[in-house]
Amino acid sequence: MSFVLLALVLLLSVFSPARALWPLPRSLQTGSTALTLSPSFNIKLSVLHAPSDLLDAVARTKQYLLNDKLERLVVGRSSADTAAIAGAKTLSALTLQLTPGATARPITTEAQQAPEDRDEAYSLTVPADGSAALITADSTLGLLRGLTTFGQLWYFHSGQLYTLSAPVHVEDSPAYPYRGFMLDTARNFFPVADIKRTLDAMSWVKINTFHWHVVDSQSFPLEVPGFTDVASKGAYSASSVYTPKDVADIVSYAGARGIDVMVEIDTPGHTSVISKAHPEHVACAEATPWSTYANEPPAGQLRFTSDATTNFTANLLAAAAKMFPSKLFSTGGDELNTNCYAADPATQQALNASGQTLEQALNVFTQKTHAAIEAAGKTPVVWEEMVLVHNVTLSNETVVMVWISSDDAAAVAQKGFKIVHAPSDYFYLDCGAGGWVGNFPSGNSWCEPFKTWQKAYSFNPLSGLSADQAKLVLGGQQLLWTEQSGPQNLDSIAWPRAAASAEVFWSGPGGDDDAALPRLHDIAYRFVQRGVQAIALQPEWCALRPGACDI
Amino acid sequence: MSFVLLALVLLLSVFSPARALWPLPRSLQTGSTALTLSPSFNIKLSVLHAPSDLLDAVARTKQYLLNDKLERLVVGRSSADTAAIAGAKTLSALTLQLTPGATARPITTEAQQAPEDRDEAYSLTVPADGSAALITADSTLGLLRGLTTFGQLWYFHSGQLYTLSAPVHVEDSPAYPYRGFMLDTARNFFPVADIKRTLDAMSWVKINTFHWHVVDSQSFPLEVPGFTDVASKGAYSASSVYTPKDVADIVSYAGARGIDVMVEIDTPGHTSVISKAHPEHVACAEATPWSTYANEPPAGQLRFTSDATTNFTANLLAAAAKMFPSKLFSTGGDELNTNCYAADPATQQALNASGQTLEQALNVFTQKTHAAIEAAGKTPVVWEEMVLVHNVTLSNETVVMVWISSDDAAAVAQKGFKIVHAPSDYFYLDCGAGGWVGNFPSGNSWCEPFKTWQKAYSFNPLSGLSADQAKLVLGGQQLLWTEQSGPQNLDSIAWPRAAASAEVFWSGPGGDDDAALPRLHDIAYRFVQRGVQAIALQPEWCALRPGACDI
Repeated sequence: MSFVLLALVLLLSVFSPARALWPLPRSLQTGSTALTLSPSFNIKLSVLHAPSDLLDAVARTKQYLLNDKLERLVVGRSSADTAAIAGAKTLSALTLQLTPGATARPITTEAQQAPEDRDEAYSLTVPADGSAALITADSTLGLLRGLTTFGQLWYFHSGQLYTLSAPVHVEDSPAYPYRGFMLDTARNFFPVADIKRTLDAMSWVKINTFHWHVVDSQSFPLEVPGFTDVASKGAYSASSVYTPKDVADIVSYAGARGIDVMVEIDTPGHTSVISKAHPEHVACAEATPWSTYANEPPAGQLRFTSDATTNFTANLLAAAAKMFPSKLFSTGGDELNTNCYAADPATQQALNASGQTLEQALNVFTQKTHAAIEAAGKTPVVWEEMVLVHNVTLSNETVVMVWISSDDAAAVAQKGFKIVHAPSDYFYLDCGAGGWVGNFPSGNSWCEPFKTWQKAYSFNPLSGLSADQAKLVLGGQQLLWTEQSGPQNLDSIAWPRAAASAEVFWSGPGGDDDAALPRLHDIAYRFVQRGVQAIALQPEWCALRPGACDI
Repeated sequence: MSFVLLALVLLLSVFSPARALWPLPRSLQTGSTALTLSPSFNIKLSVLHAPSDLLDAVARTKQYLLNDKLERLVVGRSSADTAAIAGAKTLSALTLQLTPGATARPITTEAQQAPEDRDEAYSLTVPADGSAALITADSTLGLLRGLTTFGQLWYFHSGQLYTLSAPVHVEDSPAYPYRGFMLDTARNFFPVADIKRTLDAMSWVKINTFHWHVVDSQSFPLEVPGFTDVASKGAYSASSVYTPKDVADIVSYAGARGIDVMVEIDTPGHTSVISKAHPEHVACAEATPWSTYANEPPAGQLRFTSDATTNFTANLLAAAAKMFPSKLFSTGGDELNTNCYAADPATQQALNASGQTLEQALNVFTQKTHAAIEAAGKTPVVWEEMVLVHNVTLSNETVVMVWISSDDAAAVAQKGFKIVHAPSDYFYLDCGAGGWVGNFPSGNSWCEPFKTWQKAYSFNPLSGLSADQAKLVLGGQQLLWTEQSGPQNLDSIAWPRAAASAEVFWSGPGGDDDAALPRLHDIAYRFVQRGVQAIALQPEWCALRPGACDI
């Protein structure tokens, strides 16, 4: 690159209006006029019968404007802009309005629709002359997304908020309707406050689905009405339980932030802990050596050949489904271990009696348990093995999560199922920390190496898919499995990395990661100002000098 | 392993008195009698003229006993011990005394002696019958180490503190006199509170040296009297500076915790930022492409061929040396880039004028700068290149830090220098997070993979050394370079991993990591209770069941 071109790139990046926005709006026009926010700046809701969660979103936006105090990431920070700000025009108001004819339903209601039915589009205009800014949308959810973008425009200097990029015009809507983040609260427990903080962080980058892998073989922290013994005997402790009140609190907190909570009760594998309350339903519970019977300790899987176990599971799922308004409900279905069933007399006896194969019995179990959640108005979500390994008969509506490898998406699409991309080779946040099995010091994590934000950012949702198959892609998500994580490193392991997929699935793939880095620094520094401990991606010296740490 | 043997191992590990101690004392005898701590438990100082930092250490120990509230890591946690505790005898007092004839000097004074002169030995006795416990030592520093061990003995249940392992008898002293932790505060800045929290954590595992890599090419956050312009122009911001008052505060906080603060002013490389105040002293400052002139951006190295620069550096080091009472002072000396000097007209001119080679000039520079810190009563510490690459003439007393590879220790020992082990292949905490250079998305960190605690724990300080050479080993340390770290992930990237080397260099190498894991869980959970965010090494299910997650 010539020095002239380099200088131009540096100049552009310094003045780039998009410097602060994440995910990048799909259409963005900006100027280079400085504009400050009036001390009496106000957000006006031009919405009849505005729902309370929209009012809350407005109040939250004002709070962020007051508290962020983020200086611009340039040498000298915002003091470099003193001259530019002096005498700038002042913005006194932002108006929110719905397009004529649109109904002001709660953000929560909009967010909890099926992914394809969510309307997150908005437009945002910030004139350069100080006249009122405007966000318009077809839905309150769209207004919320616009508020989020608006909140990223402003830097702090000496008591003032300012942008150097007026006028701003944004026309925005997501490339994909499902943009998720998965948290495993079973390997290690996370208090409600950690989940709420994570939901806040998600909302700041327009992630709209919290995939809550709430239970697993190690612990069952979800108190399900009618099945309270499973948690009371299966949680790590009485205080490591999500009560129905906690769940309602989390669902409501998420909804107000435009986030749907999709719970997963993983079945029939990953269920060892159910044996604590119901040993009759679990084969090879805590059998040793665990590595013969499970991918990780402890072993234990539901006896899906048993009618009693099938009914128990269907009822448990139905009861759990009632706790979550989402249209999606994940029944799991990963990593089924056949040794466990081969060694389980009860399972073998049942198979002999029925004359079924194990796969036939699994099919029956899945039909019945899926019927239970479908009766509750939910669409089932499963891990990829259910279609690629077990070939279970599933409704066409079923959503399949591709996790083992990004290469598996094509095979799932070939079978006509909707896809959520959750591939370990791009999106697993836990990879690369070494092995955690006790006596295997040289063990690597199975999904080595560490998945950098750049790796996640390079993901192409349509790779290997035909044009028709591409329509099956709902979106994707990064995931945190917590064998080596807990509240102690939740923020630092997730952020800002998990923002990478948020942009891939909002703005569309193909972003240049070198151009993205200054914006990602910006959002990470803003996260820290808001109390989420996003980590440094580079020395501050580099963060202040876009491009200077390129090689 | 047979099931009988396995059961025995599990039984031993459940009742193991050593379960809670880290680092493991070098001689430890324990029983299996339960003992509770009296509500009126007191620590009695049988020490004439007890220094105030010893009184503070006693007060801190009491605070930890009150506040830790750590339940034992077994299924059911401490409620599993209800029966064992019922009717247990009660311990009412712990007495601290110095061996007859010993002088009660401040802990700080003891800690700040040369490593070989520190006396950290202590003995601890906790009788099973409730009679007073006793710590004796030759020094207040030894009493502090004993207090630290005593504080790890106790679990919490229902308002009571208890041990199941009385009587306890410990005779303890470290295998190596230097046990360190290095923090880089130049790539990203860390507020004083973060450093103090880290010092606390270090003291809990008896780490006795804080190697403070305080400045580097990216920023110069140390305000050195007489050289204040270097920090005022070279720190990231006015608030990202350690003032002399901050330094005194940190040194005093460390000293009271038995920790010596060894500062490093890295020279002549890693000094780009000095150009902000003194461009005349820095060659190739911020020259591009940086990769030609430095291992990482920005380029810039002291013009050591210049008398003025040499005098400036010697005076800067002497002034910095006055801020730190430690007997050790690191002048750095790593990663010198010859391209930088080849391209620097001033350097070439000076070499031509003097007729010296670059290496000869480096030798002169090093003699003069080391003389300055030796005049201040310090022993110089350097990175390995100074002896292995540049063959600089150094005093025999010089301490050499081996960092490039653990294999290099033998070559350093061959030259007769004292060694601190700091090898990147075992002890670098930053490795494995992927590349951070802006436009190199597929870049790995140069020291891939992630260094697990098991890897660090497997380190052998004497590998490749003769018996005579072994005497040159002062100890070792884990290190946090902060290109991809900041206050946000300081705790989670460092702990409990950095406890691994603390045990290697206190208890001696060769510990079995499978046996160590339950103790490491214990210390990590205790760290969290004390506000240091040590991460989970396994699912809680495994932490509660020693051995059950072995393969």
